[in-house]
Amino acid sequence: MQLMKDLILSYNELAGKSVTVGGWIRTVRDSKNFGFIELNDGTTFKNVQIVFDESLSNFKEVAKYPISTSLIITGELVLTPQAKQPFEIKATEIVIEGTSDADYPLQKKRHTLEYLRTIAHLRPRSNTFSAAFRVRSVAAFAIHRFFQEKGFVYAHTPIITGSDAEGAGEMFRVTTLELGNPPRTESGAIDFSEDFFGKETNLTVSGQLEAEIFAQAFRNTYTFGPTFRAENSNTARHAAEFWMIEPEMAFTDINGNMEIAEEMIKYIIQYVMEQCPEEIAFFNERIDTGLLERLTNVVNSDFARVTYTEAVELLEKADVKFEFPVSWGLDLQTEHERYLTEKIFKKPVFVVNYPKEIKAFYMRLNEDGKTVAAMDLLVPGVGEIIGGSQREERFDNLVQRIKDMNLNVEDYWWYLELRKYGTTRHAGYGLGFERILMYLTGITNIRDVIPFPRTVKTAEF
Amino acid sequence: MQLMKDLILSYNELAGKSVTVGGWIRTVRDSKNFGFIELNDGTTFKNVQIVFDESLSNFKEVAKYPISTSLIITGELVLTPQAKQPFEIKATEIVIEGTSDADYPLQKKRHTLEYLRTIAHLRPRSNTFSAAFRVRSVAAFAIHRFFQEKGFVYAHTPIITGSDAEGAGEMFRVTTLELGNPPRTESGAIDFSEDFFGKETNLTVSGQLEAEIFAQAFRNTYTFGPTFRAENSNTARHAAEFWMIEPEMAFTDINGNMEIAEEMIKYIIQYVMEQCPEEIAFFNERIDTGLLERLTNVVNSDFARVTYTEAVELLEKADVKFEFPVSWGLDLQTEHERYLTEKIFKKPVFVVNYPKEIKAFYMRLNEDGKTVAAMDLLVPGVGEIIGGSQREERFDNLVQRIKDMNLNVEDYWWYLELRKYGTTRHAGYGLGFERILMYLTGITNIRDVIPFPRTVKTAEF
Repeated sequence: MQLMKDLILSYNELAGKSVTVGGWIRTVRDSKNFGFIELNDGTTFKNVQIVFDESLSNFKEVAKYPISTSLIITGELVLTPQAKQPFEIKATEIVIEGTSDADYPLQKKRHTLEYLRTIAHLRPRSNTFSAAFRVRSVAAFAIHRFFQEKGFVYAHTPIITGSDAEGAGEMFRVTTLELGNPPRTESGAIDFSEDFFGKETNLTVSGQLEAEIFAQAFRNTYTFGPTFRAENSNTARHAAEFWMIEPEMAFTDINGNMEIAEEMIKYIIQYVMEQCPEEIAFFNERIDTGLLERLTNVVNSDFARVTYTEAVELLEKADVKFEFPVSWGLDLQTEHERYLTEKIFKKPVFVVNYPKEIKAFYMRLNEDGKTVAAMDLLVPGVGEIIGGSQREERFDNLVQRIKDMNLNVEDYWWYLELRKYGTTRHAGYGLGFERILMYLTGITNIRDVIPFPRTVKTAEF
Repeated sequence: MQLMKDLILSYNELAGKSVTVGGWIRTVRDSKNFGFIELNDGTTFKNVQIVFDESLSNFKEVAKYPISTSLIITGELVLTPQAKQPFEIKATEIVIEGTSDADYPLQKKRHTLEYLRTIAHLRPRSNTFSAAFRVRSVAAFAIHRFFQEKGFVYAHTPIITGSDAEGAGEMFRVTTLELGNPPRTESGAIDFSEDFFGKETNLTVSGQLEAEIFAQAFRNTYTFGPTFRAENSNTARHAAEFWMIEPEMAFTDINGNMEIAEEMIKYIIQYVMEQCPEEIAFFNERIDTGLLERLTNVVNSDFARVTYTEAVELLEKADVKFEFPVSWGLDLQTEHERYLTEKIFKKPVFVVNYPKEIKAFYMRLNEDGKTVAAMDLLVPGVGEIIGGSQREERFDNLVQRIKDMNLNVEDYWWYLELRKYGTTRHAGYGLGFERILMYLTGITNIRDVIPFPRTVKTAEF
């Protein structure tokens, strides 16, 4: 049995030959003596057209099969240079593999994305989600290829963390203790020594600190795994479970960090555009008519760079009324970020060197004593898509920053030891995988780029 | 600054030229007028030899730098055809990047693997773990390449699951409720509607059921993500958090399943042997002297196939005293599996068609009514490395099996609907990623192929 993607790759050689395909009916229509099936096997976005006629003993039944019936079809591959599609299959045998009940929820009519979320077990069969999840797969591979070709070591950082040191957001507890009736110590506190790991554990919010361990051994490393936030944010941009990519590079400063981030973004977009031209064309036509132009623009532009201080000056001078205030020392809001990238620079822009008070303890203090070597990449249509920094590699500075942030120095014992035994300048960043997917597809709700989204009050399938 | 891996790839072109490298001192030795540094930058397993002499103004200090000091070195690349290594760098400048304290825990002497686990933040700098974690990275990429080249869609199945339906082992609870004081309903039960997801949630034990959703849309799919077992098994082969690969293929039966599994195993081994020859040579020399021969043997052999019933007969006839009984209807133990693959077949062997009572509800019932189309792949030195099956695609049979196993039919509503709307024959399997890594490296404790292992009472780093 052939894959449709292989037929599409080599239909010229297969012309006139007998082929066998399996797939699901997308549409079927018939007239008196013949009929057409649009069959899809999921290996390509496109359907293959099947022609069948009265020469089949089961002609009459075939014409009545409901949508999503699965079939195995043998027939002659016939070139159709006059038609929209380059070939069709003239069926010599149609065997039913699995029937489909008439109440199949994905009928031809358009469905809302909200409704389709309730049938996440069937929505990958629709055009939108077939395209979205294939792009997801191809983009994931693009990321692995990009880093592996450069010799980066892929690090599986832990999902369950016993450390309270990541500090990037609210966490989910992981436990095997009996909820409501946990063991207690003599003083009445919950006895976590009885928990599975002998201590309190949570789901990770970031693999960065462990990735730094790998950078100090392999020079260049990256993570790509699930991360979690227990934030009660029921928005189109927040999920409780999402995938993140976190490269970390020794002997690299903030400038090297920006270079690799820019190269990576362009690589992912280019790879997906090459591998999924039909999917991107579909999104450009149906979801976001500016998509193709925007992606092409990103690939072809040199990303701008501006300091936070300059960015604030530009925003203060801007002739526009923002909802949130702009002032040196305040964080940039999405409206500011989008104004910078969409109106001022009209292309992706890195903003660097933020006030230390609004950034994490591990970011490297600049010589001015006021800013840290942080970088955010802002892109048109989205705002921030990457956040990163050069890391503080100086032991004393790092201890001071941990204390300044009222964190517990002992919690960071191993992180600090990386600064004792051959520390190096190093840098890294985080890319939210779903964010780049929304950027690649034009899909505006994070729930529609995750196969089975986990959000506030929702963990179905 | 160049990567050492790039120098090794093109030292002939670079001969006589000036190069700059950064890295960590593995060893340093000196005599009166000159000295040698073995420098490692983590981009290759091998060190690069640096020669330095009195022409450097800091000659005396360099000779005293402790192990793991990080340096940036500029010098001439000199071919050394008489020496073990093909080239060395004659330093013209050595700049210290980061000092290393004299109490650096990874001194030259050999350390036990147990001790190295307590310094998981430094052990990637040792030969064993540098090799183990690079092999881990390369093997992960090999798996992605294998499936992507075949057009399989990579599915991110959920980590947090609200379903009790996976049925593969004990689970970790995920919650944001207050452990000792959760909200209660009027009847006194814990009110999970107040929990983050509005219901009880756990960490996934398998992505298979969701992967089947993708197989019924994309035909061929695979997962590759973390899975969890809250089993109180403190052995060298059990971790609470591990990564699993689960391909799932529509229009594929148990034979097609075995073919793809065999092809995948060979592909992974070959790719790692090609990409990591030094690492594999190291493991073969230091960890497991039969490794190279065993891996080569697997790549070159056609895997055997035997039914469970035949396997039991072979074991019953075997002239050996097993600890556990052998009898039709009982599951095979590791000692039986290893006897089959090591003594009887002397190569990998698939055992197929197990009694239905000892296998999961979703495995396809064979025509004999007694066995299911399950397959386990057994390999010399390990035993079971893959478990899979053809799935039960027939609605009525599946409902019956769910009931027979005393499971709740309603919990499987969407899984059953896959059998209502164009069901297809389909099959898949699970490969424990750490198990193939142990096989590839000869490392016998799972804690030593996971960067930061999570096991009973241990969740450090």
